[in-house]
Amino acid sequence: MSATAPAAIAPAGARQMRLGLFLLSTGHHIAGWRHPGSAADMPVSIARYAEIARMAEAACFDMLFLADNNCVPQTDWPAVRRTSRANLFEPIALLSALSMVTDRIGLVATGSTTYSEPYHTARAFGTLDHLSGGRAGWNIVTTSNSNEAWNFGRESHPAHADRYKRAGEFVEVTKGLWDSFTDDAFPRDTESGIYFDATKLGVLNHKGEHFSVRGPLNLARPPQGHPVLVQAGGSEAGRDLAARLAEVIFAVNQALPDAQAFYADIKARLIAHGRDAEAVKVMPGLFPVVGRTRAEAEDRMAELQRLLHPDVGLSLLSFLTGGFDFTPYDVDGPLPELPDTDVGKARLKVIADLAKRENLSIRQLYERIAVSRGHHMVVGSAADVADRMQDWFEGGAADGFNVMPPTFPEGFRDFCQLVVPELQRRGLFRTEYSGRTLREHLGLARPLHLPRGQVALPHA
Amino acid sequence: MSATAPAAIAPAGARQMRLGLFLLSTGHHIAGWRHPGSAADMPVSIARYAEIARMAEAACFDMLFLADNNCVPQTDWPAVRRTSRANLFEPIALLSALSMVTDRIGLVATGSTTYSEPYHTARAFGTLDHLSGGRAGWNIVTTSNSNEAWNFGRESHPAHADRYKRAGEFVEVTKGLWDSFTDDAFPRDTESGIYFDATKLGVLNHKGEHFSVRGPLNLARPPQGHPVLVQAGGSEAGRDLAARLAEVIFAVNQALPDAQAFYADIKARLIAHGRDAEAVKVMPGLFPVVGRTRAEAEDRMAELQRLLHPDVGLSLLSFLTGGFDFTPYDVDGPLPELPDTDVGKARLKVIADLAKRENLSIRQLYERIAVSRGHHMVVGSAADVADRMQDWFEGGAADGFNVMPPTFPEGFRDFCQLVVPELQRRGLFRTEYSGRTLREHLGLARPLHLPRGQVALPHA
Repeated sequence: MSATAPAAIAPAGARQMRLGLFLLSTGHHIAGWRHPGSAADMPVSIARYAEIARMAEAACFDMLFLADNNCVPQTDWPAVRRTSRANLFEPIALLSALSMVTDRIGLVATGSTTYSEPYHTARAFGTLDHLSGGRAGWNIVTTSNSNEAWNFGRESHPAHADRYKRAGEFVEVTKGLWDSFTDDAFPRDTESGIYFDATKLGVLNHKGEHFSVRGPLNLARPPQGHPVLVQAGGSEAGRDLAARLAEVIFAVNQALPDAQAFYADIKARLIAHGRDAEAVKVMPGLFPVVGRTRAEAEDRMAELQRLLHPDVGLSLLSFLTGGFDFTPYDVDGPLPELPDTDVGKARLKVIADLAKRENLSIRQLYERIAVSRGHHMVVGSAADVADRMQDWFEGGAADGFNVMPPTFPEGFRDFCQLVVPELQRRGLFRTEYSGRTLREHLGLARPLHLPRGQVALPHA
Repeated sequence: MSATAPAAIAPAGARQMRLGLFLLSTGHHIAGWRHPGSAADMPVSIARYAEIARMAEAACFDMLFLADNNCVPQTDWPAVRRTSRANLFEPIALLSALSMVTDRIGLVATGSTTYSEPYHTARAFGTLDHLSGGRAGWNIVTTSNSNEAWNFGRESHPAHADRYKRAGEFVEVTKGLWDSFTDDAFPRDTESGIYFDATKLGVLNHKGEHFSVRGPLNLARPPQGHPVLVQAGGSEAGRDLAARLAEVIFAVNQALPDAQAFYADIKARLIAHGRDAEAVKVMPGLFPVVGRTRAEAEDRMAELQRLLHPDVGLSLLSFLTGGFDFTPYDVDGPLPELPDTDVGKARLKVIADLAKRENLSIRQLYERIAVSRGHHMVVGSAADVADRMQDWFEGGAADGFNVMPPTFPEGFRDFCQLVVPELQRRGLFRTEYSGRTLREHLGLARPLHLPRGQVALPHA
């Protein structure tokens, strides 16, 4: 807390922003592991993760968020050995461990619907919700990295539309499995010897296009009813899925007008689906580099950029341009004419336009792209960062943010020590938890139990 | 510890027994949840599990052991509502949580090879090994409950032989994935910017009968090299798999001569496979009911048996006899003639012979069967239980035991307070941990890294 001003209390009922902490390897700056403020061994150190989780809870964050891959994502990059992302703990195991060293903070893991089974997913996230006393969330993804297909016996990755169809059915089955028992199914009456009321156990009997799952799930209904459903896809199919069933959306927006348009689109889709506009919290990613002054922040950013090896920058640029080989060109010269490709035409145009508009060299271009990965970046003082967050939050662009610190632990500690108190002073963020579950933190309703299938137990 | 005698120290290098704690719901007596010494809510309470785990670690147990099902196993039992086993936490999540409240004890989870993928299994168990600092073990099962098939889109459960063929290949792939990186692959050199040595990353490129898995696994090699491999199948195929690749076997033996024959068979198979006889630890299940005197133990057992509702006993008996309906018969009368069935002929004969030999009523028969589930039972004082364990341990029948207390926490607390000190006084069990990893506790070698497949990274 700053000593300069007393903490302002938000007016009762005032809208406050939600904050997630996006945990990723050694930090979100791809070269950040080389920085003295990073713990380079973080990807395989539970002690490091525990330290960060406690720090986020002390700052009253709504949730931790873990991305996921079932592959080493960049084995085809010449510079893969210069990155820290080849190691990734299985997210349910990691969050289960972190549930024991935290009390309040939400725990959101990514789980793919493409290379998993609904029964496994329902059990894993249901168990995490029980272990944590109602703090689990599931970030539903369809997997964008086709390398994963090769690890699961497939020749190629399914097409986008097919993945989303499967995802929709997958989520419905998973919700049905969570509702196998009603909330009050377990009297555990030692006198009569009745452990559970078999009339309160439903057999799902799902038979659909992609899945045939009988059920029931061998787990009591999760404390939250269902873990919070999170979604991150920005495509038409992704937005539609989100509007139908998500409760949190992690968005990717570079600039305020884009974010406002995305926010308005999602809220309109919700209403079209008969849902309340408040039923989904839109939380764009935010990459903050913060200093005690703006100059200090800019120095920190420059320091990070100096650690970015050209091989890494060129690998990333090549990846984003469909495999174009930049190695024959002068890295401090202009961007060559890029040939048309079959993949990512829109992204290719954005990159080429950016370079032309701002007259960027190849190095300047990859420095811009390597850092933000498409997310909004802000470099400045605590007031600068808080101003930007307030503008988006009050400007119809965000219900909160998924914070992506450049390094762990230092980059996140700076955010907690400088920006969080500033947001609290402005009444924009909580100073203590009022709820116990992730749903309570986010202001989301607990889903009602829906009886599905039929109760088919003999002698019930 | 008893106050009557100083703890004897085993002679240096003396062989000591290994002890696992088999965690199962509210305890191994099927009606034990009704007993005041049970925590009836244990299946969904991490606080209860944490209490038991700490108790086992204070008693210097080698490991916790979790069975698993991907179904509610007895939905076709009329008495399912009278049992506490419809709830089962996902085991990797549970053990990951318990890794944070323990320091030394091994953590062994069951993982099926029939309805999972090697990549998921390698990640999950590899992560648990990292989280726990080298305390993970994998109990490899092929799933015997055909109900699981219906939860994974299958019409029927695969045949026994097919399951074991798949299991053999599954384990080989998993081991290959754990060896994706060598132990020294990660210099994390901030100066040069090299995070890992790409020549020390192997792409598995496995293409077999059941699996096609490219790799590499996105995880550093586990601290133990590989988590400890455990196996529990007693069939010919199960024993062969165990002799080829297991390091611990959880055996099911009713009587000393059976256990001696099983032990000798396994050790002979090991030698036939070119492995050292000490490379596998054979640990039969042991169901102990212990009291301060033999009479007190017998009273405790009778108290538990009084809680066993006839519906549960008859359900279990019906299940074990291929579906025979006992409800028309007098429960205190003799066993009727059982018709021949297609399933479990050997088990049917054992049951019918037992009833005839000892002239048991239906009730007496199910009371005998309900308790032990085929495992060895001992009811007596600490000296009685320790005597039996010593006989088996020194009589060529066991390297240790998988302890199956009738209730949690009381039945296990009795074992820790009464039997463990007696074993320690006799020099048969450790009084403190000397190692840090599960392999060290068990005296198992750390597997060498085997290069598999080819290093195929560009610019490595």
